[in-house]
Amino acid sequence: MSGDISLKILSKSLGNMVLVRLRNGKMLRGLLQGYDQHMNIVLDDADEIVDENNANKLGTIVVRGDNIIMISPS
Amino acid sequence: MSGDISLKILSKSLGNMVLVRLRNGKMLRGLLQGYDQHMNIVLDDADEIVDENNANKLGTIVVRGDNIIMISPS
Amino acid sequence: MSGDISLKILSKSLGNMVLVRLRNGKMLRGLLQGYDQHMNIVLDDADEIVDENNANKLGTIVVRGDNIIMISPS
Amino acid sequence: MSGDISLKILSKSLGNMVLVRLRNGKMLRGLLQGYDQHMNIVLDDADEIVDENNANKLGTIVVRGDNIIMISPS
Amino acid sequence: MSGDISLKILSKSLGNMVLVRLRNGKMLRGLLQGYDQHMNIVLDDADEIVDENNANKLGTIVVRGDNIIMISPS
Amino acid sequence: MSGDISLKILSKSLGNMVLVRLRNGKMLRGLLQGYDQHMNIVLDDADEIVDENNANKLGTIVVRGDNIIMISPS
Amino acid sequence: MSGDISLKILSKSLGNMVLVRLRNGKMLRGLLQGYDQHMNIVLDDADEIVDENNANKLGTIVVRGDNIIMISPS
Repeated sequence: MSGDISLKILSKSLGNMVLVRLRNGKMLRGLLQGYDQHMNIVLDDADEIVDENNANKLGTIVVRGDNIIMISPS
Repeated sequence: MSGDISLKILSKSLGNMVLVRLRNGKMLRGLLQGYDQHMNIVLDDADEIVDENNANKLGTIVVRGDNIIMISPS
Repeated sequence: MSGDISLKILSKSLGNMVLVRLRNGKMLRGLLQGYDQHMNIVLDDADEIVDENNANKLGTIVVRGDNIIMISPS
Repeated sequence: MSGDISLKILSKSLGNMVLVRLRNGKMLRGLLQGYDQHMNIVLDDADEIVDENNANKLGTIVVRGDNIIMISPS
Repeated sequence: MSGDISLKILSKSLGNMVLVRLRNGKMLRGLLQGYDQHMNIVLDDADEIVDENNANKLGTIVVRGDNIIMISPS
Repeated sequence: MSGDISLKILSKSLGNMVLVRLRNGKMLRGLLQGYDQHMNIVLDDADEIVDENNANKLGTIVVRGDNIIMISPS
Repeated sequence: MSGDISLKILSKSLGNMVLVRLRNGKMLRGLLQGYDQHMNIVLDDADEIVDENNANKLGTIVVRGDNIIMISPS
């Protein structure tokens, strides 16, 4: 098994920009400040991406992991 | 891993105003009085934000964590 | 952490009127007779609030916690 | 905490008629024959209430607790 | 508490016809061959009931308990 | 209790064709290569059944158990 | 029981292209870099497949297992 790779990817992304796709169809972007084994995450300077040219500023956010579909380093 | 950062952010927000986005699409605002590891939270002087100029006063509320998408200090 | 504050708020509300918002969009009002760590609650003299002037009488009810979005002392 | 009150209410209702509201919007009525800590319940002489004057007879039923919103002694 | 009554009802129904209502609105009928504490069940000679006069033959089926609303001996 | 019968049915179906009904309304058919206690399953030569005459070939698939409503040996 | 076969299939697919069908109806394709017992997976060079001729490039992604319906080696 290679289970810890999810957390390794997140670990390597600490301090970097990540994209987060939520179950409600929304997309977030922000600097990954932390995460845990439930994929609860903390983002700094987070935006909700509306479209290519628009984003809502959210500041620092704590996102509950069970709302997350996927996270990608960007 | 850096799992405790979610709780650290919440801890630093105790007594301060936070925004809470719920799964049902509603947005809450209130003074964070407490939280636990399930992200159950207690807000004082809570409002449900209707739009930029309107809010419904809710007083003190206990919110079950599994309804929460994200929490942001504001 | 300050996790027990949810239960402390509920504890202080025992015997008092609380408002309970459910996931199905319904709102309940009743005297809080008990609760547990899952936020299962027992209400006496409970009403389902239809609108400002109308309510359906429910009597004593046991509500499963996972249907609850928030509880507020009133 | 006063957690066991849910089970105490159910215990006092054994052999009596209860109303059960389900997540799918349906309402059941029947004699409570048993329950467990998940709120799985057994009803005898159960009916699905269609409207004030109509009910579908269901006989004895085992209801999985996670479909239940609330139970009220009647 | 009287928690084991659900399993006792199911136990007494082994080898007998039961009706099973599913969360997706479908109704099954079949001979109960087994069950477990999650209410996973095995039915023999199962049918999906379409209406009073029509049924789709399913043969032997294993049904995951978390899709089940209620089971009734018939 | 007769809980292990679900797994016994699946065990007897190893290497045989099974039908799998999913929560999203889709139907799968394939050779059962394995399963576990969560009803995660592996199918070989799997098809998604579109209608009586059409099927999409899926090859080998791993299906997460919590998407499964029922499995039937065929 | 033959429970470990799911993980064995995933293990044999490490470094290879897999197709992943999500609960939200989307389809992903990418090189499987890792997985764990919750079926959380890491894909490299991932695409979201729009139709036969179009795909959105996603790069490296961590996908939470509870969004996954099925995974197939391709």
